[in-house]
Amino acid sequence: MDFEQTFLFVIEMIGTVAAAISGIRMAAAKQFDWFGAYSVGLVTAIGGGTLRDLLLGIPVFWMQSIWYLAVTLLSLGVVIVFRRILVHTRILFIFDTIGLALFVVIGIQKSIAADYSAWVAIIMGVVTGACGGVFRDILLNQEPLLFKKDLYATACLIGGLVYCGVIMLGGSVPLQGMACAVTVIIMRMLAVRYSWSLPVMKSHDQIN
Amino acid sequence: MDFEQTFLFVIEMIGTVAAAISGIRMAAAKQFDWFGAYSVGLVTAIGGGTLRDLLLGIPVFWMQSIWYLAVTLLSLGVVIVFRRILVHTRILFIFDTIGLALFVVIGIQKSIAADYSAWVAIIMGVVTGACGGVFRDILLNQEPLLFKKDLYATACLIGGLVYCGVIMLGGSVPLQGMACAVTVIIMRMLAVRYSWSLPVMKSHDQIN
Amino acid sequence: MDFEQTFLFVIEMIGTVAAAISGIRMAAAKQFDWFGAYSVGLVTAIGGGTLRDLLLGIPVFWMQSIWYLAVTLLSLGVVIVFRRILVHTRILFIFDTIGLALFVVIGIQKSIAADYSAWVAIIMGVVTGACGGVFRDILLNQEPLLFKKDLYATACLIGGLVYCGVIMLGGSVPLQGMACAVTVIIMRMLAVRYSWSLPVMKSHDQIN
Repeated sequence: MDFEQTFLFVIEMIGTVAAAISGIRMAAAKQFDWFGAYSVGLVTAIGGGTLRDLLLGIPVFWMQSIWYLAVTLLSLGVVIVFRRILVHTRILFIFDTIGLALFVVIGIQKSIAADYSAWVAIIMGVVTGACGGVFRDILLNQEPLLFKKDLYATACLIGGLVYCGVIMLGGSVPLQGMACAVTVIIMRMLAVRYSWSLPVMKSHDQIN
Repeated sequence: MDFEQTFLFVIEMIGTVAAAISGIRMAAAKQFDWFGAYSVGLVTAIGGGTLRDLLLGIPVFWMQSIWYLAVTLLSLGVVIVFRRILVHTRILFIFDTIGLALFVVIGIQKSIAADYSAWVAIIMGVVTGACGGVFRDILLNQEPLLFKKDLYATACLIGGLVYCGVIMLGGSVPLQGMACAVTVIIMRMLAVRYSWSLPVMKSHDQIN
Repeated sequence: MDFEQTFLFVIEMIGTVAAAISGIRMAAAKQFDWFGAYSVGLVTAIGGGTLRDLLLGIPVFWMQSIWYLAVTLLSLGVVIVFRRILVHTRILFIFDTIGLALFVVIGIQKSIAADYSAWVAIIMGVVTGACGGVFRDILLNQEPLLFKKDLYATACLIGGLVYCGVIMLGGSVPLQGMACAVTVIIMRMLAVRYSWSLPVMKSHDQIN
């Protein structure tokens, strides 16, 4: 592994830990046991990428390296030991956002490498970044936060559009990834800072 | 594309729109935002076929053509703009039923084309027709309507049996599809008209 | 089929019936109709193995033989006809535990046969044994019992470790399977007998 690969690997692990911790803490709030919390953390961290790999028909990424399961175990330990501290820190948000940005880039790159068209790649970027949180909420038996709150998935989508824009403008592969990641990070930070959100659907229905 | 293919494509898009609108409206009733409603609509429309393609081990259908995502976006626009009108119309039920019938036929045909046996094909017909609604209800965090109400899935099942019956009787491919589709449509209409339903399970248990 | 294969097949069917009945009874407690109960029973019985096969990229097991669907139908009939009796019997627990042990062994063997490493095989053993119950609870719209109760998944995990331990010690294939199965059965029985459970996560958070 050269320096660039090592750098990306470290970012990916940071993103995995941040996602896992978010899942583990929410499982803790529901009194899940250690195994349940680990499972929810793992699904939050690897669920989006797993769905992406199944849809693309490529080998599932976390089955190629034990690191994903290992850092999720580490995350569980961190939450159990340091939970009082975690409540009061915002560093998790930063880790989560950086990880999200990388997840989107990875999703897009894998789709392109598997010869899918640009729009499939953008969707797979969103799937990689956002579906882990949806699976987490399904396991926690609650409505997906993603569908009611802030611009998480929208940031992924716009990042994906920027990625493909840079491709069309002839930018290099590293530039494509950087532009996409920076877009996701800035979008997400601005969205949280200024409480941006999408319009909520209105309904006159009593459906069932 | 010749006339027959165009005709089937139009029907499939109508079915996709009808399924997407059902998902979007139920998401609206739960105050999801635009992205959430789009996601629920999309999963309702393509979820069953996606599971089918993964189970059959064939390329996922909606990743081959952007039309499915596009008409779901159209459906979102329609619900946002025309929601008052939609509440009072029953045309959606007709579209939904026609779409359901085609989804079942497509599911069976794809399974047979992939060399699976007749009973697998019938199951895949039901999966294609019914699982989108189950995924919708999981995302909405409610018990699947399908498991408590009317004969939606049963209509798919009987349609599948008719399909295989026509195969055994030596009917042509168009006849197989037509007989199946007509059966699904008639079954579903009769079921709703006369409030047919399956027996509900009885329970003396307090399980947990 | 020779004697050994027949024996294993019978055990697998017993495990399938036990899992299906657990799903069907819980669906009954929620007033699902016959189709809903059948679906929940089927997903409970085959859901874990289905996810395993999709993750491993091998043909989905229940699409190769109609027996799984057939014995689930039998299970539905048994619950409908004999539900009063079932409430008062504990034989189901024994069937369920024996079935669980075999499911874990099958999951590990299939992973090894597909050339995955030992830790993937152990995870797939847990997935095969435990995920059916998670999918059941998602369909029933309740928090997964598995994540809050007893040592179901932990028994699978320890069984998987024993399996790989016997491999490393040079034990024969039947010995690997037997040691794993016996471990799962004993662990599960002890856990229920002495009410063993994992620590529950503590939380100071109000997260959302």
